[in-house]
Amino acid sequence: MEIKTSSKFVAELIGTFGLVLFGCGAAAIAGANTMGGLSGLGLLGIAVAFGLSVVVFAYAIGGISGCHINPAVTVGVLLAGKMSAKDAIVYIIAQFIGALLGAFVLQQILSGQLAGFSAGEWAYGSNGWGKGYQNEYGQTSAFLIEAVLTFLFLFVILATTSKVGNGTMAGLAIGFTLLLIHLVAIPVTGTSVNPARSFGPAILAGGNALSQLWLFIVAPLVGAAVAAGVWRALEPKD
Amino acid sequence: MEIKTSSKFVAELIGTFGLVLFGCGAAAIAGANTMGGLSGLGLLGIAVAFGLSVVVFAYAIGGISGCHINPAVTVGVLLAGKMSAKDAIVYIIAQFIGALLGAFVLQQILSGQLAGFSAGEWAYGSNGWGKGYQNEYGQTSAFLIEAVLTFLFLFVILATTSKVGNGTMAGLAIGFTLLLIHLVAIPVTGTSVNPARSFGPAILAGGNALSQLWLFIVAPLVGAAVAAGVWRALEPKD
Amino acid sequence: MEIKTSSKFVAELIGTFGLVLFGCGAAAIAGANTMGGLSGLGLLGIAVAFGLSVVVFAYAIGGISGCHINPAVTVGVLLAGKMSAKDAIVYIIAQFIGALLGAFVLQQILSGQLAGFSAGEWAYGSNGWGKGYQNEYGQTSAFLIEAVLTFLFLFVILATTSKVGNGTMAGLAIGFTLLLIHLVAIPVTGTSVNPARSFGPAILAGGNALSQLWLFIVAPLVGAAVAAGVWRALEPKD
Amino acid sequence: MEIKTSSKFVAELIGTFGLVLFGCGAAAIAGANTMGGLSGLGLLGIAVAFGLSVVVFAYAIGGISGCHINPAVTVGVLLAGKMSAKDAIVYIIAQFIGALLGAFVLQQILSGQLAGFSAGEWAYGSNGWGKGYQNEYGQTSAFLIEAVLTFLFLFVILATTSKVGNGTMAGLAIGFTLLLIHLVAIPVTGTSVNPARSFGPAILAGGNALSQLWLFIVAPLVGAAVAAGVWRALEPKD
Repeated sequence: MEIKTSSKFVAELIGTFGLVLFGCGAAAIAGANTMGGLSGLGLLGIAVAFGLSVVVFAYAIGGISGCHINPAVTVGVLLAGKMSAKDAIVYIIAQFIGALLGAFVLQQILSGQLAGFSAGEWAYGSNGWGKGYQNEYGQTSAFLIEAVLTFLFLFVILATTSKVGNGTMAGLAIGFTLLLIHLVAIPVTGTSVNPARSFGPAILAGGNALSQLWLFIVAPLVGAAVAAGVWRALEPKD
Repeated sequence: MEIKTSSKFVAELIGTFGLVLFGCGAAAIAGANTMGGLSGLGLLGIAVAFGLSVVVFAYAIGGISGCHINPAVTVGVLLAGKMSAKDAIVYIIAQFIGALLGAFVLQQILSGQLAGFSAGEWAYGSNGWGKGYQNEYGQTSAFLIEAVLTFLFLFVILATTSKVGNGTMAGLAIGFTLLLIHLVAIPVTGTSVNPARSFGPAILAGGNALSQLWLFIVAPLVGAAVAAGVWRALEPKD
Repeated sequence: MEIKTSSKFVAELIGTFGLVLFGCGAAAIAGANTMGGLSGLGLLGIAVAFGLSVVVFAYAIGGISGCHINPAVTVGVLLAGKMSAKDAIVYIIAQFIGALLGAFVLQQILSGQLAGFSAGEWAYGSNGWGKGYQNEYGQTSAFLIEAVLTFLFLFVILATTSKVGNGTMAGLAIGFTLLLIHLVAIPVTGTSVNPARSFGPAILAGGNALSQLWLFIVAPLVGAAVAAGVWRALEPKD
Repeated sequence: MEIKTSSKFVAELIGTFGLVLFGCGAAAIAGANTMGGLSGLGLLGIAVAFGLSVVVFAYAIGGISGCHINPAVTVGVLLAGKMSAKDAIVYIIAQFIGALLGAFVLQQILSGQLAGFSAGEWAYGSNGWGKGYQNEYGQTSAFLIEAVLTFLFLFVILATTSKVGNGTMAGLAIGFTLLLIHLVAIPVTGTSVNPARSFGPAILAGGNALSQLWLFIVAPLVGAAVAAGVWRALEPKD
């Protein structure tokens, strides 16, 4: 069954749109909400939102585009020798457009209702670090955690989708890895490991979110490149 | 193996009954509960209740009726050309009866114990918006979020149950999508994306829940129709 | 591959032991804990503990005994015509012994540290209702919710393990159903739907927990019997 | 497909590194965090972090090394007659190095930001008991709970990976078992059942964490040995 490039483009766009709407939406709409007696969504709920987004789109569009919905994943898969550079460019464009569209729809739904986690200079679930951002971790901690966690993310992706992996369960394992990454990193950077996911909210939020965007492009790409190299050495040859 | 229409009717009725009893029950009984030292169920718990309800009935009655338990799903599947109009009518009647029965049993269990999230004009886990309903989002936000999230729900359903999907994991992916939808939308509308789920509690609660019911029928159907169109264009032909 | 009756006995005993130690243990040890700044386990955590216990033992001992670890399940499966009366008796004895052993080990670990949820007259995660038990729901609500939820539990069990179910995912769906049941019923009865799970803690707690034990034997058996009848009518014949 | 011993070594090292970084990282970075309006990660979030770490690495490196990432698992599998002593030694060395590396990276990310759960004498998610450690359970409770829960962990591992288990779901069931273990034991010992997971943080934290390390080596090994014996007696012979 031949999949058209245009279908892959649409699939990656819708998937990244959904990831940002579900993930950043959970953070910006429900994350800080306490709603008369309820305990709010909390860090676990936000982590679940990002992680399960990857799970559901993996099973929805995995058969069409492989469900990268993340430029760092596309670069890692490219460097591991598993896709063409031409496809990689198509994927990355679709991911940035989808993420921007997701952040835009979120902005329309919020229509000014900004509170807690997503208020102020880092609206719409933007990533960041330093003074005024959550627990105020420094830039070195932010870079280190983004690079190391993207390394683990790509390692799990390359291993579970290889011939020693289990095709049925790969989507679940990959999404759960993104969930784990959020469980650790939300207080440090809000958790990106995905340049497109950071790009969408940053464009609409501007300010600090936009001026700190570079780290959420560079650090994930470094982590992804190292994972591709490690996996090339480790992958069993038959 | 031929499945009788009456069996499909009973399966959809029990499934929708279970969805409302588990989902609205979690919101109305445990949602606002803080129970001496415990932290209550919270938004994540309510989202899990609705999402896993779809997961469990997908694996229980998926082989009998396909487990729609939601008129918007039935309409989306019908418009995507995957079922007959005659079956669709049977399904939708069963879903409304099941939802009403679920809300009725919930009312009997509560027997007057209404508190927090489900108290007042929107009892039994009713959907709503505006003044007095949770974070008091406006009607435009309510319509937008219900339509967009139902679009994503139907997109995942049509994709995961297509020939590019994974039959074993489809039920998990579809239920997790409903979980994600609740993680984002509870503070806005309480989250419907399902006319029957809104119908059951609204009939018993009356008042605002009933007068706002139209939106939770129209917006999900709009989202489902768009998803059916997009999927018809995207679906790989062999 | 022939499985010996003694192996089934040991499997059911260990499984029920684990269910009580994980489920009642989570409620009694961590349920009420707030531990300097942490938000405690809460209702969702306790529900996850009971639900995932069934998931893990379903995959561990499902191939040996079918993993009932609940007399109401054994009676429902018996009435649905899926097992012998002789095996049913062996299973139920093993389940009561395993549950008592689980409650005993929990008592040794706690060694007097009783607080919040599990303190006082309903220690060790005992089930109950009425004055002094959580939200103080009445006996009618308690009976109704235990019977209806056991009906849904057995319905899912019989459907997912039938020829229209998916053998790989049945264990997950069944455990998630128990999780859902806890999300709804903890504030009402603490959630039993399992006479053995109620028996273990009640024997060691005595008092109210013991005098109310009858309801957690009768109501689940009523629900299980109705589900067996419904499923016999609904089950597709080839 | 022959897997080289060096690949198994690297796989176990990366897996244990990830387990410590995700699990202890969630406890030390996000566990105690409350972050302006959010409800923090809580016990459930920490339990999810440890449990899902095993799930994701089971599907990533299960086909390479079997994904033990825990010396107690390796000893249990060895005593059950399922691996060679030579491989066991390689695995255990890799696990201790990986755990230490994970704790070291965590220390660099934290760079002095220690609060709540991981502060003071038991930094970096260290295990412990007694005066000053969480709910201050005694040494007998600590030993009993670590031994009994490791018994259940190994029982599930040996059963789900045997010929009566389901190969596709084994990784999920095993990881969920570790999640359950944490739901019960965090207030007592912080939950180890894994000598390497305790070793990494203890070396860097020193003090009480280091002087109490022996229990988290001995108790899990006792539980694992008993499980290996029980499984040898119970395992169906064809």
